[in-house]
Amino acid sequence: MKDLDTTGYEVVCVSPRNHMVFTPLLASTCVGTLEFRSVAEPLARIQPAVSKSPGSYFLLARCTAVDPDAHTIDCETVTEGEKDALKPWKFKVAYDKLVFACGAEASTFGIRGVTDHAIFLREVHHAQEIRRKLLLNLMLSDVPGISEEEKRRLLHCVVVGGGPTGVEFSGELSDFIIRDVKQRYSHVKDYIHVTLIEANEILSSFDVRLRQYATNQLIKSGVRLVRGIVKDVQSNKLILDNGEEVPYGLLVWSTGVGASSFVKSLPFPKSPGGRIGVDEWLRVPSVRDVFAIGDCSGFLESTGKDVLPALAQVAERQGKYLARLLNHIMKAGGGHANCEINVDLGPAFVYKHLGSMATVGRYKALVDLRQSKESRGISLAGFVSWFIWRSAYLTRVISWRNRLYVAINWLTTLLFGRDISRI
Amino acid sequence: MKDLDTTGYEVVCVSPRNHMVFTPLLASTCVGTLEFRSVAEPLARIQPAVSKSPGSYFLLARCTAVDPDAHTIDCETVTEGEKDALKPWKFKVAYDKLVFACGAEASTFGIRGVTDHAIFLREVHHAQEIRRKLLLNLMLSDVPGISEEEKRRLLHCVVVGGGPTGVEFSGELSDFIIRDVKQRYSHVKDYIHVTLIEANEILSSFDVRLRQYATNQLIKSGVRLVRGIVKDVQSNKLILDNGEEVPYGLLVWSTGVGASSFVKSLPFPKSPGGRIGVDEWLRVPSVRDVFAIGDCSGFLESTGKDVLPALAQVAERQGKYLARLLNHIMKAGGGHANCEINVDLGPAFVYKHLGSMATVGRYKALVDLRQSKESRGISLAGFVSWFIWRSAYLTRVISWRNRLYVAINWLTTLLFGRDISRI
Repeated sequence: MKDLDTTGYEVVCVSPRNHMVFTPLLASTCVGTLEFRSVAEPLARIQPAVSKSPGSYFLLARCTAVDPDAHTIDCETVTEGEKDALKPWKFKVAYDKLVFACGAEASTFGIRGVTDHAIFLREVHHAQEIRRKLLLNLMLSDVPGISEEEKRRLLHCVVVGGGPTGVEFSGELSDFIIRDVKQRYSHVKDYIHVTLIEANEILSSFDVRLRQYATNQLIKSGVRLVRGIVKDVQSNKLILDNGEEVPYGLLVWSTGVGASSFVKSLPFPKSPGGRIGVDEWLRVPSVRDVFAIGDCSGFLESTGKDVLPALAQVAERQGKYLARLLNHIMKAGGGHANCEINVDLGPAFVYKHLGSMATVGRYKALVDLRQSKESRGISLAGFVSWFIWRSAYLTRVISWRNRLYVAINWLTTLLFGRDISRI
Repeated sequence: MKDLDTTGYEVVCVSPRNHMVFTPLLASTCVGTLEFRSVAEPLARIQPAVSKSPGSYFLLARCTAVDPDAHTIDCETVTEGEKDALKPWKFKVAYDKLVFACGAEASTFGIRGVTDHAIFLREVHHAQEIRRKLLLNLMLSDVPGISEEEKRRLLHCVVVGGGPTGVEFSGELSDFIIRDVKQRYSHVKDYIHVTLIEANEILSSFDVRLRQYATNQLIKSGVRLVRGIVKDVQSNKLILDNGEEVPYGLLVWSTGVGASSFVKSLPFPKSPGGRIGVDEWLRVPSVRDVFAIGDCSGFLESTGKDVLPALAQVAERQGKYLARLLNHIMKAGGGHANCEINVDLGPAFVYKHLGSMATVGRYKALVDLRQSKESRGISLAGFVSWFIWRSAYLTRVISWRNRLYVAINWLTTLLFGRDISRI
């Protein structure tokens, strides 16, 4: 949306939220290292046309279906969670070009109780829920009348999934415990513990040396690493495949993402993994004027290319590519529906992996600059990586306003500690 | 709590929220001029003993009853609003000295529907609700399928009560409309309106010249002032005493405060207005070792003094006075229950009004430095007052962390406009 040429296109954005979440920094907001608004970018700041130009709009709604022949989508407004809110209503939007960029859903692998009892880490309201619950548990465990066993359960934070999100969240949490809980909740500091459960190896996409470093670092910060598969989740305990019961007060689920039920419902051919299948130019080949980018899309098997990982890095690069492609099509006179037949599309989309990063708390991070899991390249771990991690993400935050706030949040966390108001 | 001498006292704070709200700046957070956390001060930052000293605690609970003879209070934990939260449980806390500082409740004057449909402006979650609802209404009114009439209703913001809170909120709102809505929601900018309803005169405690200035300033910013009494509140309209129906999309109720049902339930003599009655030393005279300060307390008729207004200024001065008094009692050996009989309490509490301030939006404010409504003194209005208003409040914010954030919020609002993410 940011790079679309609004002199030629009218932009209509249909989304159930009016902001973009800068997900790589979301884990830091759960414990107050960063504030929620520092990682949320209003869409009107990303593409001002939606709030100003006569034919461009932001529509707070969910897309429910698409009619590629009629060139329209069906939508329903989102008004949940407000008192005296209007009842949702349905409407249609006509399009010349349609881009799906609707992301993925957290995977639960069909395990019972996950959706009811665990908290995901994908949206700002998830981070808010984690922060409120963590502070509630810390405070309740200090109130007279609670048993020792209940206190230990309340303050047991369990993270399922050892990918970058799970590891970064565990790192932030242990940092919060070492730095802030010891000072601000010193009555209960010996009761709080973090357990990270992973079926395979943590950070499996990283270099083996970095994985070992991360494991040592997490153990040193007091995180208990458990190799196991979760079988069942109940309201205050989960059960592992070896029968072990793990009582918890906070359960965060970060085992990766899969195709959403909306994506599954779409009448398009799918890539391996059930995402919207696209060709080399990110077009949905069975219909006209439809494109898909980000976590909701994947190369069709017929392209001979692998489905790209569900990373911010991929989505960003695809977004930029597609904006250029659409601007090119528009300038060549193919901007309207059903009329781009004779336009030369130029080079296909090629993804070049720049590397991966993850922080493990306590001013330590990993930077893996290899292009793929098998190739050779630079990999670093430690304070310098942590510095690179922070600097790199600071430059990726979209607006200057949020860059300023991220920097100031980091500064005040360093100077004053994290904010523990439960609001 | 801040000034209590923790070398002699153990401090136990029982409260349903773990932070203090800096209410004078709360109205600014509803539209994003300030962020919520900039006006919330965690109690552990105000009195660190509650989180560190072995006998001092913060207890997330509501006090439900007091037994002055046994020197105990009954409490119940507060766990509402979380999924899988513990069921609330009851417990008792014993005290040597008991201080009631539990504030007041918003007055509804028994008008039907106020609690169900209006939003008060007393807590951070009220400001969050207002901000979410305002942004929701702005976005919904831009979605196809809404009628012109419904659009006008959704974007009609009604404020009932023309005291400082109602006026400041109306001012912030009109400032938000002039500066941010015109830019960020330009499709609907001609539909949004603010109406301020007051039964008598706005800002009745201020100098007549300042009142006139405020009235002109509000009208100039587009606020419609209505003299009237609300008779009935329904889910999307309210009815005035002259029969006029006022449709609204957002209704903020700020008609002042009265004694809470908890205060009414306490077995103590009451001051005029139903607050906990206190003597000149802020003691509850019918029992031993009980004190009351702030909005929940008032001088007994027998003292011959007027009940003080429900202002932050009064509460702050009483808190400081009482901390000194309790420290004095403790040092004289009277810190325990039932043993302060022979201590000379020193001078009684005397309140000296320093003046009142209110902002009316668009860099304008009122400063009234008269000591009472009848006396003479300095009163100012305009940009200089606005500057005094901001500087004065900036110095009153308790922690350096929040002072920094308030200043930076003001700066970024000036530079980048207000944040319109609905999170």
